[in-house]
Amino acid sequence: MPPRPRTDRAAAVAPVASTALRPLPLGAATITAGFWRDRQDVNRKATIPAAGERLEEAGTLRNLRRAAGREPAADGFTGRLFADSDVYKWLEAVAWEQSCEPSEDLAERQAATSALVAAAQEPDGYLNTYVRLASPGGRFTDLEKGHELYCAGHLLQAAVAQYRATGDGTLLTVATRFADLLAAHFGPGRVEGVDGHPLIEMALVELYRATGTQSYLELAQYFVEARGHGLLVPPGHHGPAYFQDHLPVREVRILAGHAVRALYLASGATDVAVETGDTELLDALRSTWQTMTESQTYLTGGAGSRWYGEAFGDPFELPPDTAYCETCAAIASVQWSWRLLLATGDTKYADQVERTLYNAVVSGVSLTGGEFFYVNTLKVRDGAYADDQRSAVAGRQPWYGTACCPPNVMRTLASLDQLVATSDQDGLQLHLYAPATVSADLHGEPVGLTVTTRYPWHGKVSIIVTESPGSPWTLSLRLPAWAEGCTVTVNGSEEPIGQVGRSLPLHRRWQQGDEVILELPVRARRTLPDDRVDSVRGCVAIERGPLVYCFEQLDQPEAVVLDRTAVVAGELVESDQPGLLGGVTTVAVPGRLPDGSATTLTAIPYYAWANRSVGPMTVWIDAR
Amino acid sequence: MPPRPRTDRAAAVAPVASTALRPLPLGAATITAGFWRDRQDVNRKATIPAAGERLEEAGTLRNLRRAAGREPAADGFTGRLFADSDVYKWLEAVAWEQSCEPSEDLAERQAATSALVAAAQEPDGYLNTYVRLASPGGRFTDLEKGHELYCAGHLLQAAVAQYRATGDGTLLTVATRFADLLAAHFGPGRVEGVDGHPLIEMALVELYRATGTQSYLELAQYFVEARGHGLLVPPGHHGPAYFQDHLPVREVRILAGHAVRALYLASGATDVAVETGDTELLDALRSTWQTMTESQTYLTGGAGSRWYGEAFGDPFELPPDTAYCETCAAIASVQWSWRLLLATGDTKYADQVERTLYNAVVSGVSLTGGEFFYVNTLKVRDGAYADDQRSAVAGRQPWYGTACCPPNVMRTLASLDQLVATSDQDGLQLHLYAPATVSADLHGEPVGLTVTTRYPWHGKVSIIVTESPGSPWTLSLRLPAWAEGCTVTVNGSEEPIGQVGRSLPLHRRWQQGDEVILELPVRARRTLPDDRVDSVRGCVAIERGPLVYCFEQLDQPEAVVLDRTAVVAGELVESDQPGLLGGVTTVAVPGRLPDGSATTLTAIPYYAWANRSVGPMTVWIDAR
Repeated sequence: MPPRPRTDRAAAVAPVASTALRPLPLGAATITAGFWRDRQDVNRKATIPAAGERLEEAGTLRNLRRAAGREPAADGFTGRLFADSDVYKWLEAVAWEQSCEPSEDLAERQAATSALVAAAQEPDGYLNTYVRLASPGGRFTDLEKGHELYCAGHLLQAAVAQYRATGDGTLLTVATRFADLLAAHFGPGRVEGVDGHPLIEMALVELYRATGTQSYLELAQYFVEARGHGLLVPPGHHGPAYFQDHLPVREVRILAGHAVRALYLASGATDVAVETGDTELLDALRSTWQTMTESQTYLTGGAGSRWYGEAFGDPFELPPDTAYCETCAAIASVQWSWRLLLATGDTKYADQVERTLYNAVVSGVSLTGGEFFYVNTLKVRDGAYADDQRSAVAGRQPWYGTACCPPNVMRTLASLDQLVATSDQDGLQLHLYAPATVSADLHGEPVGLTVTTRYPWHGKVSIIVTESPGSPWTLSLRLPAWAEGCTVTVNGSEEPIGQVGRSLPLHRRWQQGDEVILELPVRARRTLPDDRVDSVRGCVAIERGPLVYCFEQLDQPEAVVLDRTAVVAGELVESDQPGLLGGVTTVAVPGRLPDGSATTLTAIPYYAWANRSVGPMTVWIDAR
Repeated sequence: MPPRPRTDRAAAVAPVASTALRPLPLGAATITAGFWRDRQDVNRKATIPAAGERLEEAGTLRNLRRAAGREPAADGFTGRLFADSDVYKWLEAVAWEQSCEPSEDLAERQAATSALVAAAQEPDGYLNTYVRLASPGGRFTDLEKGHELYCAGHLLQAAVAQYRATGDGTLLTVATRFADLLAAHFGPGRVEGVDGHPLIEMALVELYRATGTQSYLELAQYFVEARGHGLLVPPGHHGPAYFQDHLPVREVRILAGHAVRALYLASGATDVAVETGDTELLDALRSTWQTMTESQTYLTGGAGSRWYGEAFGDPFELPPDTAYCETCAAIASVQWSWRLLLATGDTKYADQVERTLYNAVVSGVSLTGGEFFYVNTLKVRDGAYADDQRSAVAGRQPWYGTACCPPNVMRTLASLDQLVATSDQDGLQLHLYAPATVSADLHGEPVGLTVTTRYPWHGKVSIIVTESPGSPWTLSLRLPAWAEGCTVTVNGSEEPIGQVGRSLPLHRRWQQGDEVILELPVRARRTLPDDRVDSVRGCVAIERGPLVYCFEQLDQPEAVVLDRTAVVAGELVESDQPGLLGGVTTVAVPGRLPDGSATTLTAIPYYAWANRSVGPMTVWIDAR
């Protein structure tokens, strides 16, 4: 099978938005080994194929066949009303995979499923199997809960991914026909309304970038601006904040309500702000992001403090035990931070992308790739009870009745190469440190890098210039905020570092074979909480590089009850454990039992918890 | 209008269960003044009459008229499917009021509404206006969510109250007809099933006590024993613990799931255990109560840590900010503790009754009696958002879409006299200290007491014997667990006290005019939390007598931000404020601002918060 084209068609079509950084063309950066590549391989070989079976078992693909007339429509609809979106997210994952490592099997599944989606589309461009099979005539009659535009948004995203990754326009045709219908239906002077579950905003801007069709951007802008004016939700059981309809987006400064919805909307609003040059809106979003990161985000990068309403809490309401931290919310947070990184070039956004990926996102899937967490708690007590499929106490599940998280993980891992590096007028910026090759055009001349590292386990990152134009350009390295004491050498000569938590620009006439070595101080460290977070007052957490650690009961001496044991001052002893949990570095932490006697606790990376058994676990531990 | 009869008909009919203590006949104890009488007066004069209007506005009474054929049934059902229960709870409150202070207006409302209920009953005894109007043929088809037996339970309770308080048997006839139908329908060899919302268990035992009909007790016993065997709930979105169907009741040691359901079931199971002499079941319930009180109950006596599922948390999961503490759960907790007090005579149960009443229950209604809290949080942050009618941040509401809490408060205050004292073979026990008259028969001879006190504001309780048999008997005084240092004199002579947290028996040949003076050390004190409760680690709360205190932002100096201010060692200065919040004692607490400078914070009783405005508030405050 021939390799698929990998050009970035999107960049070729849409006008260039004024962002600080630009994504590289698809395929320009490839993660070649290491932590993320291992997970991508599992995603490709195990998770995505198995998910195809799950979508069949759950009836999700059957809904499409019925809507397409390939099975009797009278047999009705199976699953939750937003089930179509699971197929689209899976198709998006399949598409990105095709841009990484083409596979005949996946290409066949992609072609067959895309054809099915196209066949299920109604003559006027509308597409939603729930409405078609279970609620005929119900089109756009329940914007609050119907999820029609949410499903449409995932269709649009899958279509753009497929077109960019493979050149196959099957889904793009479906998407533009549906988007044209939406643009004709909604907006000022037409039907005024917004969807209860944001996503369409971001998807329309992506479709605009892929096609250049201005009306998609205008509709996205309309959906952003129309929110918060009471169009959507009368006061009720869930109030308007649940649906982000409590305030106009540009007046929001503290996120509220359903976390995934809030973060998808923020991402879409950022896209709109960037594409329309709306600096007031962008500034509002940056301010809101800052508040979220400082007071509404867990150490893991997880977002959403409340099970009730799957919602953001008030600032500093961050209980570890009842954390919701939906996997989808972590992914949405990565999407938002990434957009703000592109818009501003500020590495604090890339730091947050990294923290969230390594902890709150990748904890959402088991090491074998077959099970998923919906909720990513930071603490489980001894004897905790699970009365819900989503409870961490129940362990990762092969699938969910509401199966939003699994395919969201799949598309995120499948597209992770795209987050490695960016470019701007002056050069390249490295954001994620992983073994990788990076190539790009700088003013028409090719640049190439090869990155070698055992990060995050070890701190040395070697970057070799494999290709370079004759004129000087800038290689920028992200110095994470935790990386105090890092060093950088260029061909053996040390560079002045200054402050961390910023980008280090290395400007020179680079030669093929030049080597930059970044030494990140990947050492276990103690992290103290903000003392306004009630539930972790007096506690400490262990971090190491970008990884948050946790204590699982099964790694501790018998006398240790996690809730009654404190950690004390003393050396943190690291040891590489190649045979443990796919290969991790553990941290031995000096501790004290309630009777005052000394003990040693063992911490493992948080993302790897609950892969042996599910028992008591804590990220934060008493340190008084 | 002639006074209504006040005899305890129940005791006359049912066999005497083997309990340690017995309730006094209705009307034997009367609260005559003070804290509770003030609230009872507001309840009688403002709350109950206004609730009649709310039940009309909400369509709840109209449902009955439609079911009774007095309005067109075709117009359908209004409200939540359990709305009938609001009417029954209100009727129960009206009935108890008639036993306290008969009122012609209330008597008329009672008669009219009872006649309406009777007219709405179907020929075979079934009664549920939702099923009648909105789901014909749906009788007993949705035991999980239908609330039919829950509504039936409240009908039975109202009927027993009316019969006991007024001698009017209108509702009792309706109730026994319905109960006979239930007994013929459910049980071994008939339809096996239990209701998703417990309550019927307790109600059937009460009806058994009032009528002596054995089949009601047998049905209650069946409903208790049938739970936890998977009859009710297939694993699902809410699991079986939500409905208390995860374990047989006698195997439960830690409460889980919906708090109100769990506590109503525990109360009903206690009734069944007592009436059937099932000591194994009673022991299990006592053990569960102990765990709940030590690790699943807030300082206020509130129960239910989780908004999601309105549920109990795991042991020591007691966050103050996201506490649910439904008013109904506090009331159910009082009902359960009271039953265990009767069963065992152990004053720890009476302590918990008192703590819960003074804090978690009475916080549920405004001082003017017109508004209600559904959720009784222990902390509100600055800038907290309310996206739900039930959120404390939204303030007390005049009524709710699910209006379970308001009439539950009404029936509790209207029947509070019944919790003042009990009797046993040897004499009388005083449990709640309030200005009151108490009369009883001891082996056929009359005993009378008059209690005078300004408790809970002041600690002196004077008990004068107004009538006594010639033979010796025992007057027992509850010495609350917090009352270290209390004193008791009899006619001026000090009695040895020994330990507090128990009952002090004063056995002698009492004479008319004898005076017992109990001096309770009602002084502001600091309370430290169990350090397994993460979210209040390092904090302190102020209590005074049975009252939990809180800090409202509006009482503090401008520089105080509650979340950033600590309290420090030093004198707690009390001051009586007759003009504040209906008359309270405030406590001045020395504190320290974040910059280290000294300040003074003012604490008010928790129950009175949010009666001026709703703003930041906290029960627990940093004390490091």
